[in-house]
Amino acid sequence: GYGRFGIYYSENAGADGVAGTADDFVGAFDSSTDVTSRFRLQIDATAESDAGVVVGARVRIQQNEGETGMTNGARFFARSGGFEVGVGNIFGALDSMPGQYPIDLDLGLTGLGYDYTAYQFNGDFYSSGGLGNSGDNGVEVMYSAGDLSVHVSASDTDDRVAGYVAYTWSGWTFAVGAQDSDNAGDTEWTATAGGSFGIADVTLAYADNGTNGDRTVLTGRFDVGAATDMEVYVADQEGGADTGYGVDFNHDLGGGVSLRGGVAKRINGNTVADAGVRFNF
Amino acid sequence: GYGRFGIYYSENAGADGVAGTADDFVGAFDSSTDVTSRFRLQIDATAESDAGVVVGARVRIQQNEGETGMTNGARFFARSGGFEVGVGNIFGALDSMPGQYPIDLDLGLTGLGYDYTAYQFNGDFYSSGGLGNSGDNGVEVMYSAGDLSVHVSASDTDDRVAGYVAYTWSGWTFAVGAQDSDNAGDTEWTATAGGSFGIADVTLAYADNGTNGDRTVLTGRFDVGAATDMEVYVADQEGGADTGYGVDFNHDLGGGVSLRGGVAKRINGNTVADAGVRFNF
Amino acid sequence: GYGRFGIYYSENAGADGVAGTADDFVGAFDSSTDVTSRFRLQIDATAESDAGVVVGARVRIQQNEGETGMTNGARFFARSGGFEVGVGNIFGALDSMPGQYPIDLDLGLTGLGYDYTAYQFNGDFYSSGGLGNSGDNGVEVMYSAGDLSVHVSASDTDDRVAGYVAYTWSGWTFAVGAQDSDNAGDTEWTATAGGSFGIADVTLAYADNGTNGDRTVLTGRFDVGAATDMEVYVADQEGGADTGYGVDFNHDLGGGVSLRGGVAKRINGNTVADAGVRFNF
Repeated sequence: GYGRFGIYYSENAGADGVAGTADDFVGAFDSSTDVTSRFRLQIDATAESDAGVVVGARVRIQQNEGETGMTNGARFFARSGGFEVGVGNIFGALDSMPGQYPIDLDLGLTGLGYDYTAYQFNGDFYSSGGLGNSGDNGVEVMYSAGDLSVHVSASDTDDRVAGYVAYTWSGWTFAVGAQDSDNAGDTEWTATAGGSFGIADVTLAYADNGTNGDRTVLTGRFDVGAATDMEVYVADQEGGADTGYGVDFNHDLGGGVSLRGGVAKRINGNTVADAGVRFNF
Repeated sequence: GYGRFGIYYSENAGADGVAGTADDFVGAFDSSTDVTSRFRLQIDATAESDAGVVVGARVRIQQNEGETGMTNGARFFARSGGFEVGVGNIFGALDSMPGQYPIDLDLGLTGLGYDYTAYQFNGDFYSSGGLGNSGDNGVEVMYSAGDLSVHVSASDTDDRVAGYVAYTWSGWTFAVGAQDSDNAGDTEWTATAGGSFGIADVTLAYADNGTNGDRTVLTGRFDVGAATDMEVYVADQEGGADTGYGVDFNHDLGGGVSLRGGVAKRINGNTVADAGVRFNF
Repeated sequence: GYGRFGIYYSENAGADGVAGTADDFVGAFDSSTDVTSRFRLQIDATAESDAGVVVGARVRIQQNEGETGMTNGARFFARSGGFEVGVGNIFGALDSMPGQYPIDLDLGLTGLGYDYTAYQFNGDFYSSGGLGNSGDNGVEVMYSAGDLSVHVSASDTDDRVAGYVAYTWSGWTFAVGAQDSDNAGDTEWTATAGGSFGIADVTLAYADNGTNGDRTVLTGRFDVGAATDMEVYVADQEGGADTGYGVDFNHDLGGGVSLRGGVAKRINGNTVADAGVRFNF
């Protein structure tokens, strides 16, 4: 798992006066800077049959600042070679698609709102703090062979069925995903392309999120030293108040410890920033 | 601990339309087949004194499909040789008695209702998901020496006091248990006999469950291959709608992984079935 | 972590009739003796940067008799040499001050009400079962060098700022702590002195707890055998119903296992006693 802690600034901290909570920028309120933190303990329990099939489950105990923790909904899987079947709190095809999380780990320390994820969670995804699709007949099949990867997932949530296909040519990865569901705000289709220009790694992502509008995101990452990189994004949202953009830095201290921080202008118009320490264990 | 996942069919899935939940066969509803799963993480924490007394506690995080998890009530114990004292979320004498769980692990993948447990949980037992007798002055004493085992438990739940004595002669185990409580539906007494006829392991169990009626269960297990066995049971319940019966198979894949499945005709008249994978970790 | 279990007697067990619960001595009720227990699992997750800074988090799953468990609020820290910064569910300066817990581990098995802690929790402290100051901008800085230790903590709870300085001269430790807050019942200042007279370790502690009154506590510990010690305390509370006092014994069984028990006359007038086993794991 990992831990992270630091400070979070929000130009408008919402009615609760605490930066980084769900009510930021809801109503007209003052700015605030507050302690932010997350503790994530990941438990991967597996067994391997004589024929080499790995069977297992994953649960997490994840708690943010001001939260206690319990285990989330479990994801179960059976895996053999490049083939995997999962049930329960599934990963979800769209959320697992290359290019949906083009920023390394998270923008800054905390992700700062994840405006740079094109499909905007309008589909099934693994929930680190809740049930996700556990109890919802969540099922998924994943297959990878060489440069090809395919992922199909389905659940009873709005009868979602989603899938993606990705292929890598000489360092560039192209992915296309689509979804059928009963929810008009769910992602219809999405496409991404990512690779390296030498000086920078870039990703371009587009998603048609139905009644939630189209989103286009361009992202870049630059090394600015032996142990430091910077990342930037620009996100355009159909009907959005502003063009979103953000920048962050990550400085590796070795031993799984890093300093991180970032600033983002949210699509909704709010400005947020964070800085702190992340460590893996 | 262990994990298991697969599918569960119920002829009548109840008002929630989900097979394998508490409301199955309550009211007139359609059948359903749904994902079933369980994740159980067992934490046994112990220390041993210089004199060789082992002192410890057990807690579990257990969560079924559609559930998050927290630790259950703890059981504490001190053990020396064949003698053990336990407090808290105690095992309970009747639930620990040989012959009450005559099916290996569970019928099929999930137990399919456990109609084959003669005392039908009308006594104290370890709760994997709740408090059990923690907070209820649950206390138990267990003793075993050679072929003899004795277990006495007590709690403030209906002022229960229960005990069993079991003895094994040349491969056959006979056990008798009795209980005193303030609850007219609690088990009065129960007796079991189990052993092997070579071709099959069989268990016969009877319980006088007070106002909940008598139950008689006959169970058999047969090896049907080097790594496969089958189990069957017939259960007769005083005042029951039907004679209950069931059959399952268990196929060992090695490494603690097994394929399992079963079908049962419940005493209440419902038909249920399951199939899936179980793995130990 | 550790576990402990045994029995707890309360002269007046309160309306719930269970000894050792919050309502003991509230109203006129009968005495009771009940099973008491605690299970504490401590998770310390850390990483160390190349420069030797240790970064980490601590969470606990703690559950008493009659409780299930989840993780508490997390405390995060970065530590380098004798210098440490903590955020979240902070330890708190006053609660960490030498002399506030003058009894080894707890009086008897359970602490028996902790009347011997002079500052009486009128400040910030690490919560083993809840959030503590997580979500409350809890921050603390600790520094130690040789015989000197300093600790300053702050949180948004009543805008508390607290600190202590402690110094050790030839086996005697002197500490002074003070706090500023918006709560008239919070500790204003506190001082302790502790050391050894050869035959006994003694601690004298005083706290001005604002509108909650002054408290003065004198404590002693005596070895009464190779593996056994006894402890006594006398506690005087401004406006208290009685002078509080207590005595306990601790008998080490090796391997992290000990027998413990004690009796206390509470300042509120109630008499309580406990006895049992504690084990570390």
